[in-house]
Amino acid sequence: MSNPVTSNQAQIGVTGLAVMGRNLARNLARHGYTVAVHNRTAARTRALVEEFGHEGDFVPAGTAEEFVAALERPRRLVIMVKAGGPTDAVIEEFAPLLDEGDIVVDGGNAHFADTRRRERALRERGIHFVGAGVSGGEEGALNGPSIMPGGPVEAWEALRPLLEDIAAKAADGTPCTAHIGPDGAGHFVKMVHNGIEYADMQLIAEAYDLLRTVAGYEPARIAEVFRTWSTGRLDSYLVGITAEVLAHTDAATGRPFVDVVADAAEQKGTGRWTVQTALDLGVPVSGIAEAVFARSLSGHTGLREAAAGLPGPRGRALDEGEAARFADRVEQALYASKVVSYAQGWNMVRAASEEYGWDVDPGAVAAVWRGGCIIRAAFLDRVRAAFAADPALPTLLADPGFAEEVGGAQQAWRETVAEAVRHGVPVPGFSAALASYDALRAGRLPASLVQAQRDYFGAHTYRRTDRAGSYHTLWGGDRSEVSADI
Amino acid sequence: MSNPVTSNQAQIGVTGLAVMGRNLARNLARHGYTVAVHNRTAARTRALVEEFGHEGDFVPAGTAEEFVAALERPRRLVIMVKAGGPTDAVIEEFAPLLDEGDIVVDGGNAHFADTRRRERALRERGIHFVGAGVSGGEEGALNGPSIMPGGPVEAWEALRPLLEDIAAKAADGTPCTAHIGPDGAGHFVKMVHNGIEYADMQLIAEAYDLLRTVAGYEPARIAEVFRTWSTGRLDSYLVGITAEVLAHTDAATGRPFVDVVADAAEQKGTGRWTVQTALDLGVPVSGIAEAVFARSLSGHTGLREAAAGLPGPRGRALDEGEAARFADRVEQALYASKVVSYAQGWNMVRAASEEYGWDVDPGAVAAVWRGGCIIRAAFLDRVRAAFAADPALPTLLADPGFAEEVGGAQQAWRETVAEAVRHGVPVPGFSAALASYDALRAGRLPASLVQAQRDYFGAHTYRRTDRAGSYHTLWGGDRSEVSADI
Repeated sequence: MSNPVTSNQAQIGVTGLAVMGRNLARNLARHGYTVAVHNRTAARTRALVEEFGHEGDFVPAGTAEEFVAALERPRRLVIMVKAGGPTDAVIEEFAPLLDEGDIVVDGGNAHFADTRRRERALRERGIHFVGAGVSGGEEGALNGPSIMPGGPVEAWEALRPLLEDIAAKAADGTPCTAHIGPDGAGHFVKMVHNGIEYADMQLIAEAYDLLRTVAGYEPARIAEVFRTWSTGRLDSYLVGITAEVLAHTDAATGRPFVDVVADAAEQKGTGRWTVQTALDLGVPVSGIAEAVFARSLSGHTGLREAAAGLPGPRGRALDEGEAARFADRVEQALYASKVVSYAQGWNMVRAASEEYGWDVDPGAVAAVWRGGCIIRAAFLDRVRAAFAADPALPTLLADPGFAEEVGGAQQAWRETVAEAVRHGVPVPGFSAALASYDALRAGRLPASLVQAQRDYFGAHTYRRTDRAGSYHTLWGGDRSEVSADI
Repeated sequence: MSNPVTSNQAQIGVTGLAVMGRNLARNLARHGYTVAVHNRTAARTRALVEEFGHEGDFVPAGTAEEFVAALERPRRLVIMVKAGGPTDAVIEEFAPLLDEGDIVVDGGNAHFADTRRRERALRERGIHFVGAGVSGGEEGALNGPSIMPGGPVEAWEALRPLLEDIAAKAADGTPCTAHIGPDGAGHFVKMVHNGIEYADMQLIAEAYDLLRTVAGYEPARIAEVFRTWSTGRLDSYLVGITAEVLAHTDAATGRPFVDVVADAAEQKGTGRWTVQTALDLGVPVSGIAEAVFARSLSGHTGLREAAAGLPGPRGRALDEGEAARFADRVEQALYASKVVSYAQGWNMVRAASEEYGWDVDPGAVAAVWRGGCIIRAAFLDRVRAAFAADPALPTLLADPGFAEEVGGAQQAWRETVAEAVRHGVPVPGFSAALASYDALRAGRLPASLVQAQRDYFGAHTYRRTDRAGSYHTLWGGDRSEVSADI
């Protein structure tokens, strides 16, 4: 239904009616809310009402002033435009029209640092700004996304009923949304979600490559393997669609679909942001980094052509029994690598939470990702439970349940990486995860040598294992040790 | 000798007389140049002249005005202060005192993006700005650093005789300096140098760890191994000091020095910059990234303690003959991994050169690093020769000489990584390099699956191997394929 614009009648408004904004507006309307809708070009607003007006109560607004006037107070206004400059432009357009206590939600893919800046600026003008990560793509926006709002708690309370209604629901019925924390916490967590998604996809791709190149399975057979895996602990949306993709036959050629797709993976930048931010925070996220690098490497046609003739083995074909045992080991390697990648992601959330004083509940993050988003999986309920059991858990790997599983998988994981390496199959994700696992559990790391080298060439000093203080060895002199404390 | 300030008598000036600036000024004076010296606090200027005045002709200047007046024209003025705000402050202090055609050199550790900004701003005021990477630490600044100037070519020509005099000399007598390119090219290349240095040090640390943990060698024995290696293709400053460090005994305890140094490696940020910049450029630099991550992981005491009990093997001890054969394989793995890491660094230089229109000569970069800097090595003369033989070489790995060597080493490299993985020794650098090698030479990557998944959940489209254009499969519909071109 389309309503004429009168004052204060819409409970929420959405401006920016490209597919994500349109679908979010429809989702709200379908849940019984009266939704003011607005777009820079009015044709999109009209199209939405014409095509989907029967789904609920829409109030189409032709101008920014009409849009703001249509909202009940305190106003709830959702911006769904491109991140960066366009978001700033829309905020600047609307802010002067708003009153103290009104709530502006940015549901786009903003960088969390921009969200922090915007929240600060609007707070000074008495306006609540909420940076909400929304995951699940077009389909999720319409039927239930995972929503990660960050901002003032009063704003969260005002949005909560609406967000809980339109969010995806976990298997236990809980809405996949929660107040993540102040200012940029929501967009930060959304960014980490995407980083983990990159890692997950890379690990799945490596498992596929191993089953193809070492076990000698055809795509249709590998689809079956993934289908079997998705009945167990690897059950996830991504594993499910992997099976779908691998089972698909290209109509034009009759060949497996995956074989006609060009092997150059693209990216839109959130994986890169995640790694760059992790570097700033000093948190190792090797699984995500290798996934980002693998995508960019795949697109470097020139480099790949230049290196195509380099010597090395390339796979084998196992007999039926060996292949089945190998596939079982790959499942273990995939699972263990996944746990390590997720642990790295949560380490990053913890570090940011401390850095910015966000007090993010790590279990709530897992709970919100149980449904609606790309990495949704039964697995995440176990992550939630691990942090619920011990909110101070320093790393997911220290949870007794995950530690036991990874411990049980580690022998097969090692054999899988060794096989891959021996047969020339690149497994940057599996091996980075294993190196991270082995480095974390090593009693002693060769970092002592690195620090000693730094002292040698740059007088960067070192600490000792047996007493406090900083020291420097006079390498160019008599090699005696001097205190480097002031 | 200390000269009273008269006009136009000094050929060059150095402002900022902390240890790097002081040593660079002394290096210039020792080469017969009259050097104006200036520092924010005059005590440092006096101390320099008192202590080292006998080394050459210094003109101590008490004020910025005196300093500028002391320089012959066009003026050559070297800033050696902290990167960031302090550098901007000094530039702002001096720029109004300078004339058109004067040359300002920033010899600090600026981020190349800052150098680009400063060069642009000073160019508008008619002043030549040169961002010069200087590597070699205190000792290099005094006795011959590697110098990487970026900026206008006229400024390079005016600086060239002085820089060539004070720079380190390669084995063939060539000065380790060259005009790298316009604006930020010099500081960019210095950053990549440091990134490669991180990777080199991590690879050496992994080799040490393997010799210690798998071969069962003691540090003194490993020092001998590194000493032997340094007579071959691994000959480098870093391998040399590794042998020194490992042979060193802690006087206080009588234990190997490396065992009393705390195993938490620190970093000052250029490695992080390198990886963050590579991500922006879309160039995979997994070797550098793993080195940065390994350092930060080593410092995460809480995580390491929490993970200390995780199950897994931890080394073994080989018998004498096995250990010797293992050590030989480790040398091959170290060498091959090093070549891959360097190739990644040069890929990054090429990408930046294209992005910013710098036209950097990759061979000249190698030539400049042959002496003076931390990664100096005979190896770099071979890199220089490879690019001299084929300036369009798309990657170092495509050079016939390196390809043959890495090809010869790859079997031992694979066995080394497999052994490390089997015995629980973390080798993130070795395995990232091997994964990169295998990915580059793979005819077909599982990136096709990743791209297909992206099309499935986000309608991101894909290209086909058999015809041009972008396509999308209607995954939610009848799974037919549609053109995604506009």
